[in-house]
Amino acid sequence: MDDENRVFRPGAVVYEGSQISYAGSPDGYQGPLEQEIVVPDGILLPGLLNGHNHAAMSLMRGMADDSPFFEWLTQHVWPVENRLTAEDIRVGSLLAAAEMIRSGTVGFADMYFEVEATAEAIATAGMRAWISRGLVGLEDPEGEKLNQAVAFARDWQGKAEGRIVTMLGPHAPYTCPPEYLERVAEAAKLAGVGIHIHLSESADEMKQLQERYQRTPVQLASEAGIFASRTLIAHGVFIGEEDLPYLQGMTGGVITCPVSNAKLGNGILPYAMLKEAHIPVGLGTDGATSTNSLDMFLEMKAMAWLQKIAEGRPEGFHAAEALWAATRGTAEVLGHPGGRIAEGAPADFIVVDGNQAHMTPEWDVVANLVYSAVGSDVRYVVINGRIVLQEGIITTFDEAEVIREAKARGERLMREGAKH
Amino acid sequence: MDDENRVFRPGAVVYEGSQISYAGSPDGYQGPLEQEIVVPDGILLPGLLNGHNHAAMSLMRGMADDSPFFEWLTQHVWPVENRLTAEDIRVGSLLAAAEMIRSGTVGFADMYFEVEATAEAIATAGMRAWISRGLVGLEDPEGEKLNQAVAFARDWQGKAEGRIVTMLGPHAPYTCPPEYLERVAEAAKLAGVGIHIHLSESADEMKQLQERYQRTPVQLASEAGIFASRTLIAHGVFIGEEDLPYLQGMTGGVITCPVSNAKLGNGILPYAMLKEAHIPVGLGTDGATSTNSLDMFLEMKAMAWLQKIAEGRPEGFHAAEALWAATRGTAEVLGHPGGRIAEGAPADFIVVDGNQAHMTPEWDVVANLVYSAVGSDVRYVVINGRIVLQEGIITTFDEAEVIREAKARGERLMREGAKH
Repeated sequence: MDDENRVFRPGAVVYEGSQISYAGSPDGYQGPLEQEIVVPDGILLPGLLNGHNHAAMSLMRGMADDSPFFEWLTQHVWPVENRLTAEDIRVGSLLAAAEMIRSGTVGFADMYFEVEATAEAIATAGMRAWISRGLVGLEDPEGEKLNQAVAFARDWQGKAEGRIVTMLGPHAPYTCPPEYLERVAEAAKLAGVGIHIHLSESADEMKQLQERYQRTPVQLASEAGIFASRTLIAHGVFIGEEDLPYLQGMTGGVITCPVSNAKLGNGILPYAMLKEAHIPVGLGTDGATSTNSLDMFLEMKAMAWLQKIAEGRPEGFHAAEALWAATRGTAEVLGHPGGRIAEGAPADFIVVDGNQAHMTPEWDVVANLVYSAVGSDVRYVVINGRIVLQEGIITTFDEAEVIREAKARGERLMREGAKH
Repeated sequence: MDDENRVFRPGAVVYEGSQISYAGSPDGYQGPLEQEIVVPDGILLPGLLNGHNHAAMSLMRGMADDSPFFEWLTQHVWPVENRLTAEDIRVGSLLAAAEMIRSGTVGFADMYFEVEATAEAIATAGMRAWISRGLVGLEDPEGEKLNQAVAFARDWQGKAEGRIVTMLGPHAPYTCPPEYLERVAEAAKLAGVGIHIHLSESADEMKQLQERYQRTPVQLASEAGIFASRTLIAHGVFIGEEDLPYLQGMTGGVITCPVSNAKLGNGILPYAMLKEAHIPVGLGTDGATSTNSLDMFLEMKAMAWLQKIAEGRPEGFHAAEALWAATRGTAEVLGHPGGRIAEGAPADFIVVDGNQAHMTPEWDVVANLVYSAVGSDVRYVVINGRIVLQEGIITTFDEAEVIREAKARGERLMREGAKH
């Protein structure tokens, strides 16, 4: 997965500091090596980039699953969120980091609250994160939360050796009226940061905005000036032809979350239409409360399966497109130079164990990675030149302790729930 | 998952020989124990039953993926199948067994050729299998293959301590004309074995049979007398209202293969309709050439995601239904007493490691198993009272040797392919 999508067998990657300095055949590198790691049957590829997450929602994984959406949101998710402390968010973010690192994800775009706690957790975990404070305009008449979000964005921009990038996160046009979206758009331009927003996720949302404003979510975002800054559009299930002119004029793109969209019964991204319109499509998991897993290998499978269902033919979507979405696609939406293995690219890569029954034989390494591999096949994860998963062990924090802490906090939330 | 779907924490299962003799709270058992295994944070559940497979096709995993269906079948699958030896089939079946055992599958229904090689492999591997020789009527004018299939069915019925069950496997109505189906139906009745058949898998099949016979595949099978014996219907994507009377009169049911149906762009099983009609639905992977993975945890996810897409709402399908399909559902289709944890049931169960980041916290153990777990989370597999996976190690054969052999054979097939 260099810039020409070549496969080298055997292959070698050399990195210096936080950047890749060589990628190709082992014979092609003659320079010195401080340390050498050989992984027989290892498949080295760019680290996966999860384009849409609410990391700390891992604490609510599996809560009230399969309930009607509005009941789930108002009677389960919101009441529990109201009881989450900053320390809960820190532990939940680390739990999510453990799961993401184990499954080969090197960076993720996040939208939530108590964002300092997430930023601290991710700085510790050694991952990259594009973090935004989620903003619900209806609950922020004075703009106090917007001000806090801007302050966070300024304070944390580029922190943790550049691994933390900040953004603004207006939740969605159905929770942020046009005037509020305009204020956020203006603030993002002033602060020079990107915007992370949910658009066109559900049929209900489309109907509601059509009735209220006679606009699609994309049109509302565009008219409010959101697209004047780089924009990450999460979901986009109901993007239509009429939205394409707005999207073609913007910087950024769409992050599809196929598992969340399927599990909540929302539908399938119109990927073929976006591809034809040259709009970058990345891949994300959404929060573990809706998706239940942060494993991007599952997400690649779901993307491929659902797009093939939508196309009605096996050749309608190729495995390489899912792998592209999970790496370069998300990187392009974020304006990040990663998601590829090449000289000068960030030293963000993973090694998958190819010596397993379910990866044998290897007619097609990309098909094996997308359709057969799962997150637990990842043996090494290197982020920004640092080994954060080594032979299956997380090196940056005590994973067992985080799991214990998260269990205890999950049980507390369950008990408190029972009281209400 | 006892007969009342109770969850015991802690829980204990006692087995004697090949049967479960106690299941419930540890305090409820006072009898002697020869050996005791304690798995902290282990989740014990019935072993998964894969209702539709072509095990040895694991040797073609990932071959010509994402090609148009007819090109894939005629230019890739068939030419390679023509070169498969009995020893290839034995190794391919063991490769599939390794993958299935690792991912918690205790038994599977198989349809292929050189079935003795598969039966021998599975007898060695310690799994259960319902094995049928695939029969293509168009290639069997003299009925020689049917005779061989019947001889195999008689010879191997109940072998390997009862773990091998034989069936007849007429491939499908578009490859087996009505007269041939009638002969198979008659032979199955005489031999007292069930039938495994592909029905209503693709739109092309429906169109072809409608034009040729003005019948659906289900109607053709019924009229040929197939349903006089227990019948396992694989796929069933295009089963319609008009088929229900035939299905309600039969013994057996439908095995859905959601990943294969998605990956080949065929569509989604009309599960809600079958459920309302009280037709048992089990779950299967299909062969690894179309599905790429034999992990039934992925298949449960795919079933749930796709059914929710079809329903358009999260409550339209519940995690417990996928778990039921993967256990009791397949067992009911096969007429097998397994797929449950209860006194007198076969000692076929698995233990999943619940102490992992992606399984934390545990708001709902069924949601965690269906939406978060993957096959590699399985630590123990017990089949017919024998531990075949112990702390992640397969005890019945040398897995590393099988992977080496399968790699070499896969490479041979790739080289031979290049020559043709």
